[in-house]
Amino acid sequence: METVRVGLGSRAYPIYVGAGVLEDGRLYAPHVAGRRAAVITNEVVAPLYLERLGRTLAAAGAQVTTIVLPDGEQTKDWTSLARIVDRLLEERFGRDAIVVALGGGVIGDLAGFAAAIYQRGVPFLQVPTTLLAQVDSSVGGKTGINHPRGKNMIGAFHQPLAVISDTAVLSTLPERELGAGLAEVIKHGFALDAEFALWLEANLERLLRRDAAALMHAVRRSCELKAAIVAQDERESGSRALLNFGHTFGHAIEAAQGYGAWLHGEAVAAGMAIAAALSVRLGLLEPGEATRLTAILRRAGLPVANPRIAPERLLELMRSDKKTERGRLRFVLLTATGKAQVVADPGDDQVIAAITACTST
Amino acid sequence: METVRVGLGSRAYPIYVGAGVLEDGRLYAPHVAGRRAAVITNEVVAPLYLERLGRTLAAAGAQVTTIVLPDGEQTKDWTSLARIVDRLLEERFGRDAIVVALGGGVIGDLAGFAAAIYQRGVPFLQVPTTLLAQVDSSVGGKTGINHPRGKNMIGAFHQPLAVISDTAVLSTLPERELGAGLAEVIKHGFALDAEFALWLEANLERLLRRDAAALMHAVRRSCELKAAIVAQDERESGSRALLNFGHTFGHAIEAAQGYGAWLHGEAVAAGMAIAAALSVRLGLLEPGEATRLTAILRRAGLPVANPRIAPERLLELMRSDKKTERGRLRFVLLTATGKAQVVADPGDDQVIAAITACTST
Repeated sequence: METVRVGLGSRAYPIYVGAGVLEDGRLYAPHVAGRRAAVITNEVVAPLYLERLGRTLAAAGAQVTTIVLPDGEQTKDWTSLARIVDRLLEERFGRDAIVVALGGGVIGDLAGFAAAIYQRGVPFLQVPTTLLAQVDSSVGGKTGINHPRGKNMIGAFHQPLAVISDTAVLSTLPERELGAGLAEVIKHGFALDAEFALWLEANLERLLRRDAAALMHAVRRSCELKAAIVAQDERESGSRALLNFGHTFGHAIEAAQGYGAWLHGEAVAAGMAIAAALSVRLGLLEPGEATRLTAILRRAGLPVANPRIAPERLLELMRSDKKTERGRLRFVLLTATGKAQVVADPGDDQVIAAITACTST
Repeated sequence: METVRVGLGSRAYPIYVGAGVLEDGRLYAPHVAGRRAAVITNEVVAPLYLERLGRTLAAAGAQVTTIVLPDGEQTKDWTSLARIVDRLLEERFGRDAIVVALGGGVIGDLAGFAAAIYQRGVPFLQVPTTLLAQVDSSVGGKTGINHPRGKNMIGAFHQPLAVISDTAVLSTLPERELGAGLAEVIKHGFALDAEFALWLEANLERLLRRDAAALMHAVRRSCELKAAIVAQDERESGSRALLNFGHTFGHAIEAAQGYGAWLHGEAVAAGMAIAAALSVRLGLLEPGEATRLTAILRRAGLPVANPRIAPERLLELMRSDKKTERGRLRFVLLTATGKAQVVADPGDDQVIAAITACTST
């Protein structure tokens, strides 16, 4: 097991990464002993890991309640949020209780947001079970739900007490979900760390065949990179925006398709390819570096093009994205592999041309 | 105009108290110039003050949108919250926008909570128009909505950028609302400051006839007392609990009656009378001091008894209150006028006896 710390002063917390940590009671006991714990999970994860986690929590001294929601991005909405709150109230959970999110990004975001607003905030633990959640969504305290007008439009910053990332659970992850998680791993390399990008290019096949040591390295390094940025800029007033590489286009694609058609990571992959094309078009990035990015995304089985949505429609959706400032679009673009920067308002023509160049025919 | 500061480090903010401050553009300009502002108010306040505030904000450089909700405690629910969020998204408000709460406690709590969760948090201003909101709910950053199972069960701590408390607007306040606000003023005196309690006993009639100088003093002193406690204990892990004097019983009464039968301040008044009776019963408080409290509440036209709800029912409702810790009831009780303390689990028999003794016949 390795431990990555997220340095946030009084709200600092550890990320435990390792095979088997899901059942390591010592990691839970300091947070759950003598407390009531609500494990929030979904119908796909529950049969695989809920019993093991429940047993571990009970052995660590918790009184466990479980809330099992439907699988899928559609679950990340007002209705599920109200359902969780109703259930916690019904069960008379007090402010001394704890929420445990067992699942992927949807469960983590939703359960974390429920914890943020239940009785003005109760603590929570993240037990991410997808690669995407382990390398990205479980770290940094962003929680929230979707709205028909955009993803994560309603939410809160609420840091967990700890993240327990069991790399062994990735063995049961469907192929497509593994790829979606790799998109965020590739994002960390290409936006933040050229050396990690190189390592990924050399080790992608090991990751695809779920080599334990390779997965461990990818999760740990991703968490380190993200934790360093979150520690600097918890609320995304500056450098944290770099983690949104691929997300402005990606969110617009997801919104246009309706949530759930593509996985989030798939939309981000296509978004990164478009952002790289825009970077090249604006003269910020060498074309060869954009090709490196699309090549590794393709090797991971990820989409690298806009799925035939009208560029004007994507532009309109991006304008209602919360990253917009006073109506001006802001994009995270690459200047080199491992180096990203925020560019405001590159001009609608350029954006539309980049999308058009990356539209599948 | 006088200024009370709430000392919360990087989130410190001023409370401006004075006649006419609602229309003082200089107080708004630093927060709204060049921004979009959503003024959230209700159908009763809108005809009285919305136009004046809108004009002031526009002159201070804001682009103003207004959201007018129905009046009443029933408005503080999921539906109104979703309605505000829908509207902000429809209008394409970004994270650089600001929310302005114009109204009483319901509007302040609801609009503040909407600001807390909209796109993971946008700033907001409180422009309280009731005495209760000026002396209590607008200060300290508690925001939230009600749930059929309890008041303020869903919410967040979200501090405003400033509170603009215009004492002149209290001239249009209905009699009953003035009394409800006085309940919280009296709470501040009797729970926290013996000298202020004495001043209130000597000046209650001036307050009831809305003497400008007396109202100004009552609002300012209440804000000072509350601000000092909030600065020490923003998230209510310690001394902030003292501000809940009368609220454990009061919330249970409101929940039993259905929200809106009594005003919040009326329920708190009855709750304080019951809490004082319990304090006497437990030997913590001289009977004469409890009589002082009920006497001033009566003079303010406030209820001092449980409105014939079965004591066992109140006990059950209090157990599901969020102040409960591991199932144990905690009460804020008086040891003297101006001195309160938290007492855990005084015994169900004592609680029931105190409620019974204070039940109107």
